[in-house]
Amino acid sequence: MDAIDVIRAKRDGGTLTPGQIDWAIDAYTRGAIAEEQMSALAMAILLNGMTRLEVARWTEAMIRSGERMDWSALDRPTTDKHSTGGVGDKITLPLAPVVAACGAAVPQLSGRGLGHTGGTLDKLESIPGWRASLSNAEMLDVLRSAGAVVCAAGSGLAPADRKLYALRDVTGTVESIPLIASSIMSKKIAEGTGALVLDVKVGSGAFMKTAGNARELAETMVAIGADHGLRTVALLTAMDRPLGNAVGNAVEVAESVEVLAGGGPSDVVELTLTLAREMLASAGLPDRDPAEALKDGSAMDVWRRMITAQGGDPDAPLPSARETHTVTAPASGVLSRLDAYGVGVAAWRLGAGRARKEEPVSSGAGIICHAKPGETVTKGQPLLTLHADDETRLPRALESLEGAYEIGGTPSLHPLVIDRIS
Amino acid sequence: MDAIDVIRAKRDGGTLTPGQIDWAIDAYTRGAIAEEQMSALAMAILLNGMTRLEVARWTEAMIRSGERMDWSALDRPTTDKHSTGGVGDKITLPLAPVVAACGAAVPQLSGRGLGHTGGTLDKLESIPGWRASLSNAEMLDVLRSAGAVVCAAGSGLAPADRKLYALRDVTGTVESIPLIASSIMSKKIAEGTGALVLDVKVGSGAFMKTAGNARELAETMVAIGADHGLRTVALLTAMDRPLGNAVGNAVEVAESVEVLAGGGPSDVVELTLTLAREMLASAGLPDRDPAEALKDGSAMDVWRRMITAQGGDPDAPLPSARETHTVTAPASGVLSRLDAYGVGVAAWRLGAGRARKEEPVSSGAGIICHAKPGETVTKGQPLLTLHADDETRLPRALESLEGAYEIGGTPSLHPLVIDRIS
Repeated sequence: MDAIDVIRAKRDGGTLTPGQIDWAIDAYTRGAIAEEQMSALAMAILLNGMTRLEVARWTEAMIRSGERMDWSALDRPTTDKHSTGGVGDKITLPLAPVVAACGAAVPQLSGRGLGHTGGTLDKLESIPGWRASLSNAEMLDVLRSAGAVVCAAGSGLAPADRKLYALRDVTGTVESIPLIASSIMSKKIAEGTGALVLDVKVGSGAFMKTAGNARELAETMVAIGADHGLRTVALLTAMDRPLGNAVGNAVEVAESVEVLAGGGPSDVVELTLTLAREMLASAGLPDRDPAEALKDGSAMDVWRRMITAQGGDPDAPLPSARETHTVTAPASGVLSRLDAYGVGVAAWRLGAGRARKEEPVSSGAGIICHAKPGETVTKGQPLLTLHADDETRLPRALESLEGAYEIGGTPSLHPLVIDRIS
Repeated sequence: MDAIDVIRAKRDGGTLTPGQIDWAIDAYTRGAIAEEQMSALAMAILLNGMTRLEVARWTEAMIRSGERMDWSALDRPTTDKHSTGGVGDKITLPLAPVVAACGAAVPQLSGRGLGHTGGTLDKLESIPGWRASLSNAEMLDVLRSAGAVVCAAGSGLAPADRKLYALRDVTGTVESIPLIASSIMSKKIAEGTGALVLDVKVGSGAFMKTAGNARELAETMVAIGADHGLRTVALLTAMDRPLGNAVGNAVEVAESVEVLAGGGPSDVVELTLTLAREMLASAGLPDRDPAEALKDGSAMDVWRRMITAQGGDPDAPLPSARETHTVTAPASGVLSRLDAYGVGVAAWRLGAGRARKEEPVSSGAGIICHAKPGETVTKGQPLLTLHADDETRLPRALESLEGAYEIGGTPSLHPLVIDRIS
């Protein structure tokens, strides 16, 4: 087979054969298809699309490029959640312990943040001592002792996707629904979870700005799950405003611990419980009550075991940033808008996120939102508190907050859960 | 500026700004845009097209990536021809001397063959001693002494195009009219010719299979010429059957010398004279008679001076291949079809062409067509003679001739000159 023939077939609007897809992914992983050839193919896929059969095969080929994990040694069903990423999206932190406390095992391979969306591993790494990298045997140990594990994917998992993801990142070929869907699903299927709940974010702070795009991505991923025998359901949820009040790393851990202690912002609690119910149902445990796990402290127990098992100290004080700056309400009235993207970029510029994969992030940096859209504020009251290690970061962060909030007028917000696709 | 922004702009159907184009070509030449980024951009251009302004600027940027030659020291007007390539297309060989004999100077930078289409330099290199590489000063010397020069482009000429051409070749991004047109025109404009006649081939043996595609390419190139102040005219000419009787390297030189001696196949003579008249008119010499230059031997004189000036011996016997095989007519009747592509591929497989840029070609290999479409043949008469250095090449060549000719029925051929675009 020849790389140019495969590129031409997709370029000219054709459908790739299973043999072409298998060969292309394998040859690319081995280096027999050059980066410049794969980027031309990725652009042709982005512009000409892929059929459901092509996407399923592409995903399968990426899974087969590496190992496939297996949790059949556990005595309980596994289920996992994946979020397409947003601002203040710390849901995995309370969710995994809640679901584990209710009897399912959660083997979550997670990622780091890039750009304005945060990464679960970055957040957890703000806990002193906690480490993201585990061997497969360690992962199984944590799953056995705590019921949930959140860690980094090893290099043996879907290496084709790892290589392709890095390539798409620099070649303007990220925004392709078939490529996004197959990237996510290849990792989740290789991860070996028995069921999967997708949280597809919609709005300015999300990758998918409109419900239409998000629905297409969700449907594509649910179809891939079905085609691979993985029970998959997707929720479309709001990302037009930040989730919860805290945006950053340590500040989001602190907010998650509040939720696990039975408190916390109502939207974080609601989404955690909604996703937990979906995960438990998908794992064959529809009768368990996740709210009870928050109330009786059993979710907090799992959290503490999970953090401790990965070297973290759940009682250690979390890092805080040296500098703070408070933005106050310029008028009294209803906070009608607090834009997720603006707040996300501000937190990123404060140091909570990274511009390049190799950069470190600041644990203490971030933003606390003192009011949520729909609430009434009084002129002069604190609206946002910015945290940074370095005051030189403040001006650019403040710039990205200009126009990101509005007082007066009627809020026009997505419902927290927009739709469910299964 | 950022490569990803430029890629995204074209990917999303936008128009690249002059600044984006200048930056992209310069950054790519310097290596600041990676190969995989340029291939994604090339695919986006192939699928989403470029406006006339974009193509003009893209061409300009490629010209400015290197030197621009200047023939103003000559005491006569310059004009050149470029063919998009075909089977048996040796026209440059008689044409350049004819035009020079009529008073214009022809500074032709030419190329080598790739795939089933032949290359002028490969043909000339079958002349013992002849060398393709000249310095600019040598080029000027040959132009002064002979009036015409055909040589290889130096590495300083449109280096961006050189790099991009090699990339497109391996990434399935060759077949883009804006990229083909800007590649050809950037080299021809940088070459410094004062006028240009394009021979855009149409048919199975050409890059453009239909007159519609060929017209689009011709119009794009003529527009680029106009936008750069280069008088440019294009002819669409037939490439559904081979041009002349000889297809190969030395065999085409021999046929060209026949034409220069006043003989040769009528289609080669006709196309040579038609193109010569266009070139002379474009150079401001519309009254010169190229037929006279063939008749009175002045074109042959130029040929001999031109070959000698580049180290070649015009009187040396041309190389011939060790093996020959004759295909005879299987029936009597009118030869209704002799497919240019089939004959081109056969000649290529006999050794006349190369599959990779680094490969040598065989000087002696090729095919002689003993009849042309429209002529009547008798069962058992020689139809094609195959020449190869190595008999193991014969079976594959014969395979590509299967179905390439037809006896009986009415020929349906393009006229030799299909259209003229100016």
